[in-house]
Amino acid sequence: MDQNELKSLVGRAAVEYIKDGMIVGLGTGSTVRYMVDALGERVKNEGLNIIGVTTSNRTTKQAQSLGITIKDIDEVDHIDLTIDGADEISDDFQGIKGGGGALLWEKIVADISKHYMWIVDESKMVHQLGTFPLPVEVIPFGAQHVFNKLAAKGYQPTWRMDGDQRYRTDENDYIIDLHLGKIDDPQAMAEELIHMVGVVEHGLFLNRVNDVIVGRQNGPEILHAR
Amino acid sequence: MDQNELKSLVGRAAVEYIKDGMIVGLGTGSTVRYMVDALGERVKNEGLNIIGVTTSNRTTKQAQSLGITIKDIDEVDHIDLTIDGADEISDDFQGIKGGGGALLWEKIVADISKHYMWIVDESKMVHQLGTFPLPVEVIPFGAQHVFNKLAAKGYQPTWRMDGDQRYRTDENDYIIDLHLGKIDDPQAMAEELIHMVGVVEHGLFLNRVNDVIVGRQNGPEILHAR
Repeated sequence: MDQNELKSLVGRAAVEYIKDGMIVGLGTGSTVRYMVDALGERVKNEGLNIIGVTTSNRTTKQAQSLGITIKDIDEVDHIDLTIDGADEISDDFQGIKGGGGALLWEKIVADISKHYMWIVDESKMVHQLGTFPLPVEVIPFGAQHVFNKLAAKGYQPTWRMDGDQRYRTDENDYIIDLHLGKIDDPQAMAEELIHMVGVVEHGLFLNRVNDVIVGRQNGPEILHAR
Repeated sequence: MDQNELKSLVGRAAVEYIKDGMIVGLGTGSTVRYMVDALGERVKNEGLNIIGVTTSNRTTKQAQSLGITIKDIDEVDHIDLTIDGADEISDDFQGIKGGGGALLWEKIVADISKHYMWIVDESKMVHQLGTFPLPVEVIPFGAQHVFNKLAAKGYQPTWRMDGDQRYRTDENDYIIDLHLGKIDDPQAMAEELIHMVGVVEHGLFLNRVNDVIVGRQNGPEILHAR
């Protein structure tokens, strides 16, 4: 199976965890796209009655086009299960997210979810985090100073681009990607970043995920993290 | 002297610290408004050559109307001196800011300032912080959940309003005001707030201010904090 087939595989496997009546958090990204397609089929074919809460305007559009009922996050008082992708997952189930630029809304949705699941193809499973660039969402006002500080720390920052313009998140912020190579202490890195004035959020999702479905050549592997 | 006279007094006293050639951070609020007026007079009458960096669109408008040169924060590589107001200053020179709704840009400007000064009338000097409601700037997406968590902690949150709409900051965020009565451990409160997903910044300005000019009935009192 190629990477897209593995993504489709875990997308379909994850949808089986969605039960009638649930409020479901829908992530963002190429793997989640397959999952939302599969969810749309279940809604259509089985009359599955669920409410979706999305983590990006992109996912909202896709879900609504498939007939999935979407509510604003502030219209629900909880989320039963959120299914999202990840860019890297370490041996101890810490993750980097934000390659798709939706890390802020993804973390907000994760934060109010009773159960939180990641779906990934096997290329995302690593021993140590950091090969994938770590995204940091920053307020546009004064962003160059945050960039300079990150550069001075040796974190090799680059601006996330959208063509020849800086990328803007759904909250109109910038993203700075840190090219760290490896992150020896993800908790310390998270602490350092969240204390920087101008940083809104970062892509380290620590001690959050409950279950991971990994797309392997011989089928989906389900791993329980915490 | 009434409160406005005290504000004018410290505004004029502070402007004397601005030297030719400086890059100056200009705060936001009623006391700062007097300072910016006085700065405009010095620019006009003395030909004082300075560059201003502002902390709100309001201050930008006022300064430009007075002929003060304003640059965007990302067009300067540092700020020599920032002069701003404060809503409460404790005995150990910790502060609450954000009554004017500009705390995020104010903290970003403070963060890159070599010297940081607050100007206040004497009513702002308190023994312990917390009588003034503590502002928390939050991302609109999922803000009700942040509000509910703050309420569950007993922090007596209220939405900052602008007429019958929720107030929007210059970054389009909401502000939640916490009615705490007193804050026994400002550092612990700051840590708790900055770790909440959806919180962008809070109004606790800790270990930041270098000097405070207090408007007293018998004249401005200059206090050196750190």
